[in-house]
Amino acid sequence: MTEKNLLELLRGYKNNLVDEREILARLKNLQLEAVENIGFANIDHNRELRQGFPEVIYAAGKTKEQVKEIFKRLYERSDGNLIATRASREKFEFLSEEIPAAQYNDAAQMIYVDRKKIVRDESRTILILTAGTSDLPVAEEARLTAYLFGNAVKIFHDCGVAGIHRLFAHIKDIQQASVIIVVAGMEGALASVVGGLTDKPIIAVPTSVGYGASFNGLAALLAMLNSCAAGVSVVNIDNGFGAAVVASKIVKLV
Amino acid sequence: MTEKNLLELLRGYKNNLVDEREILARLKNLQLEAVENIGFANIDHNRELRQGFPEVIYAAGKTKEQVKEIFKRLYERSDGNLIATRASREKFEFLSEEIPAAQYNDAAQMIYVDRKKIVRDESRTILILTAGTSDLPVAEEARLTAYLFGNAVKIFHDCGVAGIHRLFAHIKDIQQASVIIVVAGMEGALASVVGGLTDKPIIAVPTSVGYGASFNGLAALLAMLNSCAAGVSVVNIDNGFGAAVVASKIVKLV
Amino acid sequence: MTEKNLLELLRGYKNNLVDEREILARLKNLQLEAVENIGFANIDHNRELRQGFPEVIYAAGKTKEQVKEIFKRLYERSDGNLIATRASREKFEFLSEEIPAAQYNDAAQMIYVDRKKIVRDESRTILILTAGTSDLPVAEEARLTAYLFGNAVKIFHDCGVAGIHRLFAHIKDIQQASVIIVVAGMEGALASVVGGLTDKPIIAVPTSVGYGASFNGLAALLAMLNSCAAGVSVVNIDNGFGAAVVASKIVKLV
Amino acid sequence: MTEKNLLELLRGYKNNLVDEREILARLKNLQLEAVENIGFANIDHNRELRQGFPEVIYAAGKTKEQVKEIFKRLYERSDGNLIATRASREKFEFLSEEIPAAQYNDAAQMIYVDRKKIVRDESRTILILTAGTSDLPVAEEARLTAYLFGNAVKIFHDCGVAGIHRLFAHIKDIQQASVIIVVAGMEGALASVVGGLTDKPIIAVPTSVGYGASFNGLAALLAMLNSCAAGVSVVNIDNGFGAAVVASKIVKLV
Amino acid sequence: MTEKNLLELLRGYKNNLVDEREILARLKNLQLEAVENIGFANIDHNRELRQGFPEVIYAAGKTKEQVKEIFKRLYERSDGNLIATRASREKFEFLSEEIPAAQYNDAAQMIYVDRKKIVRDESRTILILTAGTSDLPVAEEARLTAYLFGNAVKIFHDCGVAGIHRLFAHIKDIQQASVIIVVAGMEGALASVVGGLTDKPIIAVPTSVGYGASFNGLAALLAMLNSCAAGVSVVNIDNGFGAAVVASKIVKLV
Amino acid sequence: MTEKNLLELLRGYKNNLVDEREILARLKNLQLEAVENIGFANIDHNRELRQGFPEVIYAAGKTKEQVKEIFKRLYERSDGNLIATRASREKFEFLSEEIPAAQYNDAAQMIYVDRKKIVRDESRTILILTAGTSDLPVAEEARLTAYLFGNAVKIFHDCGVAGIHRLFAHIKDIQQASVIIVVAGMEGALASVVGGLTDKPIIAVPTSVGYGASFNGLAALLAMLNSCAAGVSVVNIDNGFGAAVVASKIVKLV
Amino acid sequence: MTEKNLLELLRGYKNNLVDEREILARLKNLQLEAVENIGFANIDHNRELRQGFPEVIYAAGKTKEQVKEIFKRLYERSDGNLIATRASREKFEFLSEEIPAAQYNDAAQMIYVDRKKIVRDESRTILILTAGTSDLPVAEEARLTAYLFGNAVKIFHDCGVAGIHRLFAHIKDIQQASVIIVVAGMEGALASVVGGLTDKPIIAVPTSVGYGASFNGLAALLAMLNSCAAGVSVVNIDNGFGAAVVASKIVKLV
Amino acid sequence: MTEKNLLELLRGYKNNLVDEREILARLKNLQLEAVENIGFANIDHNRELRQGFPEVIYAAGKTKEQVKEIFKRLYERSDGNLIATRASREKFEFLSEEIPAAQYNDAAQMIYVDRKKIVRDESRTILILTAGTSDLPVAEEARLTAYLFGNAVKIFHDCGVAGIHRLFAHIKDIQQASVIIVVAGMEGALASVVGGLTDKPIIAVPTSVGYGASFNGLAALLAMLNSCAAGVSVVNIDNGFGAAVVASKIVKLV
Repeated sequence: MTEKNLLELLRGYKNNLVDEREILARLKNLQLEAVENIGFANIDHNRELRQGFPEVIYAAGKTKEQVKEIFKRLYERSDGNLIATRASREKFEFLSEEIPAAQYNDAAQMIYVDRKKIVRDESRTILILTAGTSDLPVAEEARLTAYLFGNAVKIFHDCGVAGIHRLFAHIKDIQQASVIIVVAGMEGALASVVGGLTDKPIIAVPTSVGYGASFNGLAALLAMLNSCAAGVSVVNIDNGFGAAVVASKIVKLV
Repeated sequence: MTEKNLLELLRGYKNNLVDEREILARLKNLQLEAVENIGFANIDHNRELRQGFPEVIYAAGKTKEQVKEIFKRLYERSDGNLIATRASREKFEFLSEEIPAAQYNDAAQMIYVDRKKIVRDESRTILILTAGTSDLPVAEEARLTAYLFGNAVKIFHDCGVAGIHRLFAHIKDIQQASVIIVVAGMEGALASVVGGLTDKPIIAVPTSVGYGASFNGLAALLAMLNSCAAGVSVVNIDNGFGAAVVASKIVKLV
Repeated sequence: MTEKNLLELLRGYKNNLVDEREILARLKNLQLEAVENIGFANIDHNRELRQGFPEVIYAAGKTKEQVKEIFKRLYERSDGNLIATRASREKFEFLSEEIPAAQYNDAAQMIYVDRKKIVRDESRTILILTAGTSDLPVAEEARLTAYLFGNAVKIFHDCGVAGIHRLFAHIKDIQQASVIIVVAGMEGALASVVGGLTDKPIIAVPTSVGYGASFNGLAALLAMLNSCAAGVSVVNIDNGFGAAVVASKIVKLV
Repeated sequence: MTEKNLLELLRGYKNNLVDEREILARLKNLQLEAVENIGFANIDHNRELRQGFPEVIYAAGKTKEQVKEIFKRLYERSDGNLIATRASREKFEFLSEEIPAAQYNDAAQMIYVDRKKIVRDESRTILILTAGTSDLPVAEEARLTAYLFGNAVKIFHDCGVAGIHRLFAHIKDIQQASVIIVVAGMEGALASVVGGLTDKPIIAVPTSVGYGASFNGLAALLAMLNSCAAGVSVVNIDNGFGAAVVASKIVKLV
Repeated sequence: MTEKNLLELLRGYKNNLVDEREILARLKNLQLEAVENIGFANIDHNRELRQGFPEVIYAAGKTKEQVKEIFKRLYERSDGNLIATRASREKFEFLSEEIPAAQYNDAAQMIYVDRKKIVRDESRTILILTAGTSDLPVAEEARLTAYLFGNAVKIFHDCGVAGIHRLFAHIKDIQQASVIIVVAGMEGALASVVGGLTDKPIIAVPTSVGYGASFNGLAALLAMLNSCAAGVSVVNIDNGFGAAVVASKIVKLV
Repeated sequence: MTEKNLLELLRGYKNNLVDEREILARLKNLQLEAVENIGFANIDHNRELRQGFPEVIYAAGKTKEQVKEIFKRLYERSDGNLIATRASREKFEFLSEEIPAAQYNDAAQMIYVDRKKIVRDESRTILILTAGTSDLPVAEEARLTAYLFGNAVKIFHDCGVAGIHRLFAHIKDIQQASVIIVVAGMEGALASVVGGLTDKPIIAVPTSVGYGASFNGLAALLAMLNSCAAGVSVVNIDNGFGAAVVASKIVKLV
Repeated sequence: MTEKNLLELLRGYKNNLVDEREILARLKNLQLEAVENIGFANIDHNRELRQGFPEVIYAAGKTKEQVKEIFKRLYERSDGNLIATRASREKFEFLSEEIPAAQYNDAAQMIYVDRKKIVRDESRTILILTAGTSDLPVAEEARLTAYLFGNAVKIFHDCGVAGIHRLFAHIKDIQQASVIIVVAGMEGALASVVGGLTDKPIIAVPTSVGYGASFNGLAALLAMLNSCAAGVSVVNIDNGFGAAVVASKIVKLV
Repeated sequence: MTEKNLLELLRGYKNNLVDEREILARLKNLQLEAVENIGFANIDHNRELRQGFPEVIYAAGKTKEQVKEIFKRLYERSDGNLIATRASREKFEFLSEEIPAAQYNDAAQMIYVDRKKIVRDESRTILILTAGTSDLPVAEEARLTAYLFGNAVKIFHDCGVAGIHRLFAHIKDIQQASVIIVVAGMEGALASVVGGLTDKPIIAVPTSVGYGASFNGLAALLAMLNSCAAGVSVVNIDNGFGAAVVASKIVKLV
């Protein structure tokens, strides 16, 4: 409900078109009308207005029937791009029978619909850097999300600090980007080094890549949280999606 | 053994119907007569008298033969509802050959028998709230358990704090419930927010839903234990069953 | 603001006593009027109405000036009992200069005012059991909180499972209590054993009592979360206060 | 060394004013000339040019003599604001004998010099929210850092989710801020709730405030990393300084 | 090499039958002659003499070829009972083609040869208690190991503290046993309770049975290490084998 | 109450000297008569009969008044040796004013009374080995406990594996002891090495001695639990007392 | 680019063969010319010059297409030995279609090309010791890496401390080796014992071999980091490759 | 005992100067004669012969009397340099009364005697790099140890990756050193970056420097273990001493 709707409601009440009981009930439920309750889910059709991007489906832990149903409702009631993350190819195939416009990205494990005409502004680019090729799936989740959210995105792989000149090759891109997403597993040192080279905000994504004592990304996570280069903030392990959302919110400010 | 039995025994001894050696042995074993020993298990047929609900079978780590055997004994010697938690469909199918009355709930992974006539008291409702659809299986374990234990249960899914008005839509139910079970993964913030809205006891169930640093539910568990809203107590990760038992015990008091 | 106030506001608007801009602003702020903002704190004078007990001050991490100021505001605008937890004696002494009615409990480290006439209902008793004498300070925090919240409270110390007959001595009290708070450090086994003896809800409080691998209460916390006796829920380590609030909420239902 | 300096050097070499050996050495050391080596520290006088703010001294683990010496060098060779974080009052007093312009903030434990004339742009405000008064010291570190870096800063304390209307009172500020820093201990739920209310980037700072199982901020840290509201990124526990730097970098983009 | 061999060697040297170089080499290698090196393994044929039981094969992480080869060598050079733990049925089947005397225990996942005539002394019984039927596989590993090592063993299943009278039914056996092995998952409270009932040494085996926050046995492990009943010592999670060896060593002393 | 007392009671009832109500009450409280309730503690005067040694006071977390009171009661109602562990010298001094027979051991931090005439049997010796001199306080707690419990004890310090011949110097004592307590911090390897040299049960005590990643004894604890030498069981970190109790229980069997 | 190339570039610029813009660009990219960018990877063809061994492919987390492509590029542009670690047999088979010279080692899970003529210097041997046969795969990764890097390597398996004379059998090899790699799981005590026997540097590799509380190698890792024998340094869990690289770097110094 | 002593003993036996019983006893104790047992410690006077450096005293957890006594014995029976690590100034002052030659280093917390004439070989230098000035105490422990062990040592402070050109200033020293010790807290990225720049072995020392989620050095420890640059091995947190010993052992090989 917008402010305009609220005024109409109040005026209706003033003019005796709406009685006291009704207006009381409505006022208590202001924002709820855009929520579609389908039993196992409450679809939030207003999410885009409130947070700047549509509700995204987290497919892990949902049945393929649930994913399809939620996706369909969003598909029908909006005209924006749509995303389901952590979705298996099997879920995609089940869903695409009904929504042929849906596409699938294997590396990112994302189902998506790319239908919105967007002019991407190259002067406000999100740059994604990965430490190694094994970090590619997480980076791809970030790249595709940022792209579908309407951003210009650039990505360079395999710039880890074991060969630091590979990173320095991209120094110009690093300095021209608006925001930088650093995707790294193992010791995650790339985030600190990039942080020392630029005055742009850096979003660090630890990945679960590594030998035993990476403890599925814990090592990189802690390293990034402890970055000696200030200006680095961190999202969850392997959460390329989350990093892209943070970056999008920042770029939207510019 | 009841107090009445005990008195009979003492009088028998007084009247020389029971000799000293026997009464000594019996006194040491008071409660044990209701325990049926079948080798790999000690079935506790008195559990309902002592704790207010029948022995429930934890099927994980037991063979299908063991689960069937214990279930059968409980089925035959009681007339209450029966539950086996954490049971695969395979175990159910093996068991149902012999106990056709048994049913299976896929989401909850529970085998159960629902045979007791119970009038559920709507004025003492257990309300279950989930943060997201991925928390549904754990919530379903809680719902079905609470239902079979004889309670009125209400459940709303997908009320997480990322769209907090979805929660506020249920404010009346929250205020009218006797007890509230909050099922949430990721950061588990729902428990705290609900805790701030009501004076009813809240039982929080952390779930293992989430990206890497949820560490299989540890993040939600710690968050719920640290809830800034007092009045929240916590059960084990993914333990919908346990939450339902706590809630049932509370409702029984009312 | 109560529902009655809301109706008055709406009627005022209808009768042109309140203009549109004002009512819009007021409707957005409904509950906020009871919040007193004193810069470093937002005192919530409505907490009692909403959650059934007054705002309690968590004194750790606050300066003595802050604790005194918040306490004073609550003292002046309410007539209920008041509590500040985790408060050093030094903070108490600083505060009591201005609020002579304040008292201090050394074991519990609580500052409190006990001024409300309450008839405590013995038929709805909260029973507190500790495993050992070293758990006494945490239990005392629970006892005093529950008492000031208006409950009848009974407490037995040193009933740990190493001498299990000491526990069995209290079997009648265990069976007659409405709710039981079990306070235990080390391996926290007392919660499970009590859980097996009663059909009442049990709130387990792990304490930081123990040798090295208790890891400041982690061992007891995990043990209590994994209790094989269903019906046990858990609060934070050493959080006697939290346990008392949960217990109070339950007893209020009865 | 700037690009201009580099060209001069090359032209000097071309015109035989600089010989081969010298230019080789210089080219290898490009940026190093702005580094002042004082034995126990390498002071980076170019940090402001490269990262947009001067080198900040992390005083923990340094002797008071070391802190004073580094501070003095920065004070003399720059004209910007200066900061030493995690500094005891004792270190401040030792230092201020020599640098009377230095000030101290007790809550934030920061030594600073505030000498730069800055017109702060209110339309690009950094908003800081704390969950409770005990989080104030960390928030104060963030506030003072952001202020000295030249930003307009607004701060509201004690808005935790246990009384969620206290947060809603600030909804307008939340929606008008450019970036929001959320400072919260215990379960850190505030970050998720704010994240659900706005499309602005949120920087979450977990604090070490809480009972036992907060494990010195680990609970809040994990909760924030797992925020169900996308758009939240996280810095180290109690790292108000780091959050302010990230926020400053973002605001600088706008 | 025994002391007798050593004397012969010295006398041989004295009588010039053994020269200096040889005796020097031999003295440095005393015990090594009983070690059979087969490349990927050093089989220790003297283990029984030194530690009181034969070398036992830990089959996890070894190929089926390696397990068979080591087993065969032990089989041929000794006449004692033989054990391979953590062995899959597949490894057993591969091995039994060549060693038909080998048997397999599915629950315990052990390959074994039981060929030694042993008169088991009932007056020195090892008693094994499990908390629940799901702990049976670990208990079976303990039982079979202790049996093959020559001990009298008694086992009772499903005596957990949720129904503590089931434990008290075995009080006589508890008091008559020489050593007690307690096998329990979840919160592992059984070890403490048994520890309070007897003056016999108790070896506690935590199992990985339990819901999420059992963290694969960590909860039970910590609980047992923190047992408030002194006289409890602990072996590794799920290590029924290790408990049996400790118990055997103790019984051998009697 | 002994079996003899129980028979007297039954006969009294039979002969009408004891009426039904009384005997019912008494039977429910059998063992409780030896428990002395002094409010903050339940002193268990029967502990020696049941577990083979008197109740030992864990002084940590108790006030000096509490320690003194419990000690005094035990002192007066028994004639055995007495122990309070983890007791500061200050607590000792407060206590010794009233109980001049009490002594104090600084290294072990134990208050004790040594008044029982015991002939220690050298053929059943408990051997204590420490890895380094820094482990001495824990070993001293073990030694003094074992001694006061009536055992012959031998102790060798500083036998760690960094100079393994220092250990081999004690090989004869290792082979002649009945039980061996190994006290080691850092990596705790000594337990495994000793375990490989003897067929006697080994009780390993990890200590909190070590650099950073010993994590206050966690490293040694995990190492000892994973000992490749079977026959090693483990007690809590720094728990010399617990190890001595286990060892005493074993030696009592011999 | 070598120093020689750099001088040529400078002279070219001086002689007007290279213009200012070009030399500026080249100077910023010095080392980058040897990096081959193939989109998903930046192949570092200069790694051998800089670090003494060629780039090694970490195959985990890469698709078989990616592994093959990177391998092929390295194969074509160098003439050294090549390695891909953590590679499944399936990846090997896919790759070997195109590079028939590639070989596979099942235990080590390595794809490699062994084509460089190397005279291995036996006087500078790397000695590898394993605690048990289950550690063999990790040791094999170390052995094959060290061998392909051009070292003389010796390996002894199954020397764990449970039978310490098996270790002493190799004392001469231990004293003659240049560097020793100790591969051990469980409690990892072998590293400390070897560390006490020699003055050579020891590289300890913890393995994930062990029962529950080895926590996938954490126990051995912590133990090795806490070795009481100085002179032991540690690499990641199961990281045989890393240990071999460290050892090779050391031997290269000799 | 040296080989020469052993031959003498054997010949003495052959010539009937030594009888059988004596030689048997001596052979069992070969190395033990150099061990001086002073009750609470076994001083290993042969450590230098066996491991290349004298026994070093770990003073933490020892009383000042113990430290002085062990130091004195070593001082009197050797003529080498001596070290006690982790020693407070108070322990030093107590010791220096008796051993005036002893010196103290406050930053390193080391007591030492520097009396051996050593010509340090500059061509085999150990280079120590620290990330920040707060890492200085740990680096100082490493520097002083390496120096007293006879090495040429070079140290550069404050080269962390937040200003990576500060590191590149030392590139020549990095390439000319024999071994490099990298001392870094926070995220410890310096080790990886240095590892990518050189073919020399790197010993990484994580320090406990950092904000909350450094968890006292755990973050840096894990990061260093997961270094993407191979050739890095790691010692315990804050263990400058251990790093120096590893480096010394390596340099001795050269």
